[in-house]
Amino acid sequence: MVFDFKINDKEKKYLQIYSQLKNMIYSKMLAPDSKLPSTRELSSLICVSRNSIMSAYELLEQEGLIYSIRNKGSYVKKLVADENKECSWIIPWEIKTTAYAKIAEKTDIIKNESVYKKGMISFKTIAPDENLFPIEEVKKSVLNILSNEGEKILNYGYAKGYDKLINFLLSYMTSKGVDTTNKSILITNGFTEGFDLTLSTILNKGDKILCENPTHNTALKIMKLQGLDIIGVDMTADGIDITQLSDKIKNNKVKAGFFVPSYHNPTGLVMSYDKRNLLYTIMKENNIPIIEDGFNEELQLKSDHISPLAAISNNDNSVIYIGSLSKILFPGLRIGWILGDKKLINAMESIKRSKNIHTSSLDQAILYDYLKNGNFEKYLKKIRTVYNEKFNLAIKLAKEYIPHQYITGDGGLYIFIKLKNIDARKLLSKCIDKGVIFTPGDIFYTQSIDTLHSTSSLVGWDTLRLGFSRLTLCDIEKGVKIIGHECLTL
Amino acid sequence: MVFDFKINDKEKKYLQIYSQLKNMIYSKMLAPDSKLPSTRELSSLICVSRNSIMSAYELLEQEGLIYSIRNKGSYVKKLVADENKECSWIIPWEIKTTAYAKIAEKTDIIKNESVYKKGMISFKTIAPDENLFPIEEVKKSVLNILSNEGEKILNYGYAKGYDKLINFLLSYMTSKGVDTTNKSILITNGFTEGFDLTLSTILNKGDKILCENPTHNTALKIMKLQGLDIIGVDMTADGIDITQLSDKIKNNKVKAGFFVPSYHNPTGLVMSYDKRNLLYTIMKENNIPIIEDGFNEELQLKSDHISPLAAISNNDNSVIYIGSLSKILFPGLRIGWILGDKKLINAMESIKRSKNIHTSSLDQAILYDYLKNGNFEKYLKKIRTVYNEKFNLAIKLAKEYIPHQYITGDGGLYIFIKLKNIDARKLLSKCIDKGVIFTPGDIFYTQSIDTLHSTSSLVGWDTLRLGFSRLTLCDIEKGVKIIGHECLTL
Repeated sequence: MVFDFKINDKEKKYLQIYSQLKNMIYSKMLAPDSKLPSTRELSSLICVSRNSIMSAYELLEQEGLIYSIRNKGSYVKKLVADENKECSWIIPWEIKTTAYAKIAEKTDIIKNESVYKKGMISFKTIAPDENLFPIEEVKKSVLNILSNEGEKILNYGYAKGYDKLINFLLSYMTSKGVDTTNKSILITNGFTEGFDLTLSTILNKGDKILCENPTHNTALKIMKLQGLDIIGVDMTADGIDITQLSDKIKNNKVKAGFFVPSYHNPTGLVMSYDKRNLLYTIMKENNIPIIEDGFNEELQLKSDHISPLAAISNNDNSVIYIGSLSKILFPGLRIGWILGDKKLINAMESIKRSKNIHTSSLDQAILYDYLKNGNFEKYLKKIRTVYNEKFNLAIKLAKEYIPHQYITGDGGLYIFIKLKNIDARKLLSKCIDKGVIFTPGDIFYTQSIDTLHSTSSLVGWDTLRLGFSRLTLCDIEKGVKIIGHECLTL
Repeated sequence: MVFDFKINDKEKKYLQIYSQLKNMIYSKMLAPDSKLPSTRELSSLICVSRNSIMSAYELLEQEGLIYSIRNKGSYVKKLVADENKECSWIIPWEIKTTAYAKIAEKTDIIKNESVYKKGMISFKTIAPDENLFPIEEVKKSVLNILSNEGEKILNYGYAKGYDKLINFLLSYMTSKGVDTTNKSILITNGFTEGFDLTLSTILNKGDKILCENPTHNTALKIMKLQGLDIIGVDMTADGIDITQLSDKIKNNKVKAGFFVPSYHNPTGLVMSYDKRNLLYTIMKENNIPIIEDGFNEELQLKSDHISPLAAISNNDNSVIYIGSLSKILFPGLRIGWILGDKKLINAMESIKRSKNIHTSSLDQAILYDYLKNGNFEKYLKKIRTVYNEKFNLAIKLAKEYIPHQYITGDGGLYIFIKLKNIDARKLLSKCIDKGVIFTPGDIFYTQSIDTLHSTSSLVGWDTLRLGFSRLTLCDIEKGVKIIGHECLTL
């Protein structure tokens, strides 16, 4: 018999021998009751110390895979698993998972939508362009941190977050006009965790929550998973329909509202200051707390600065602001924050601790060190210019080449198109054949999440989102022209 | 009037002026209807460009904080908030949070237990000793990663985790004797998230789950938060009571079992191979899947190697193994993993994506780069020696000085003491006065979580856990002697 062992220097030798012998036994390369080489023989055969061989044999014997006969040697045992092959213990997990897990799978668009393949022009992603990342600055920050407080940063931290980052973000929020008196901040793993935590802190299963319709698909998924009753308020080319908002509030016992005032996803619209004020007033009159997604606010040009709802609320404690730089800086670090009433953040802190103890301290320290260096403003200036150029090209070409009812977007990372009587999914499948992929708009509508994407939803059937953040100008042009061309074939 | 502006170079000037003026208005430093200096005046007064002053004034006007009269200037508006001071919008969050949030706060021992104060000898923590961390190696790993794939690592990654780390951990698990055929791995934010994800994937509210009693307090908290019915099986000085386990299974419709076979928390016991086998057989006969906490397995000395339950299960798919190195290496990085049936991990992947998209890619890459360098074995050897020395001293002194019924621990990072008719909480309050703190054992019992720690639970009243991982030998000696001395006063 040939023993074909592959022994490396990294793992413990005896464990390697053990697991390789085990494999041979399971795979029947070593037959039941066959004799193993003596430890001395095997040792010289494969050039591993006899001690290691002995340890491996001991382990195999302990596990009932071999047996030894005194003065004769070690033998392969007949596998119990073989005897009861039919009664090996297999749980049919595909049906045994909870309803919750099943909804998570059904609403997971990464699993259920067309997938990007190498070489495609992808308008799907709205992640930042990593070529803009200031890698050298990050290296400096990491070395700083590890040299100055490596031991501390690499050990357990606090559920609320890394002190220095929290304080930095508090004054950052003040600089956006937010009154932070009696408020505090909890650091989260991005917007996604922030939103999930917020909902579980203030809403019970079955509660009604308002949101723009269409809206952020991840937000829809999280609301659905928490069993909330989602009340969508239509978005027009001009943003949220305020009359409909009032009507829906009148007709429903709404417990909270979720809004994305800046670069609303997917429509790309920035809500005007007047509309923000009006929205806030209506919510206040009806005593319905607001969850504000501060997402991408940083992309606003200086001249465009519009206060977040959290600033309009002054020292009220009714707006819960969720911030994230993930579409701007390093989403791989997974950092977001919730700004809200102190007592509320206190409760959230305990939930956070029960969920994952705290967000990576190293990530938090890196972000803090990078932000405080004052290079962020410079970086923002650069990316605003780059993304603005992409936006201007994308919207100009889309208006020219794609037959539309309207196209929305105020800058940012994507535009939203309502096609002229064209089925976006049919268009998508044609475009994929031509190497272009985008996100069909239906998945952003509440009606789609209500039906768990199970039927092709009627609402939004003629809409799509084009994300251009990671594309070159050349690919934006090529891609939009291909989409336009395919429209003509439908 | 004196304008005391503090202008720095880091934030936008106009926003600084805006927010400082806003503060003056709110704080009544600027009275309603008083005239603001002209933009030209203020510009020369505080040496900031007139443009910035104008932008700040515009913003204030937009927000309704000031008004302008043509050809006269800008004036402070009477605050609406002042007019309706009594109807400013304050939500009483302390009563408005969900039952879920309230349980999270009540079961949050960090908030409800005595707190470590600087200078104390703390037996509370079981975190690793950060002085042992290989900081220089981490620096090398980070620079490697950022140089070779910084752009990729800092952008969005995959919910399942960083490929290279997953593959590394798969062979790591193989080296522990685990058959990984048809299994896969999901990377999580530590054990805590892994356990939470696992429960929400396979158990519904009200389902019964078995566990050792006492057990890991975080695990108890998570089970409680998920609304599970927790069935504790007593731990004796010899480990889990197998007869009671069988009885409880007979009398309850148990849906899953959670076990900590190595360095069980809080008792410090390592389950023998025979007991593991027996436990596995009983669970198999009753078709109850096992959640195994692989926690601290790495601290086993070479000669002690005992297979995890996941290895005993061979190619069955009934053990869900949750691994973490957080008590050994870098808990600040928040990395853990779940090894289980492929279909099950698939479902968990979708839940993970809905919770926080993915675990920090940088953290994952650092851990991978560090582990693959082969320095981990060397590090383990070092820490095993250090912790073993601490363990030997702690258990020897505890047996000598603390009046006990029994003391358990097989190495690891802590020992567990059943006192001789002494109330551990009374003892704790005496010890705190003497500058020594430890964890009273009652919080590890299912009875305590059942009552939300609201009454001083009877079970475990005479027990305590001493964590020694971060203490010097000298402080261990001093601390144990103080505890022993205080016992005599009770």
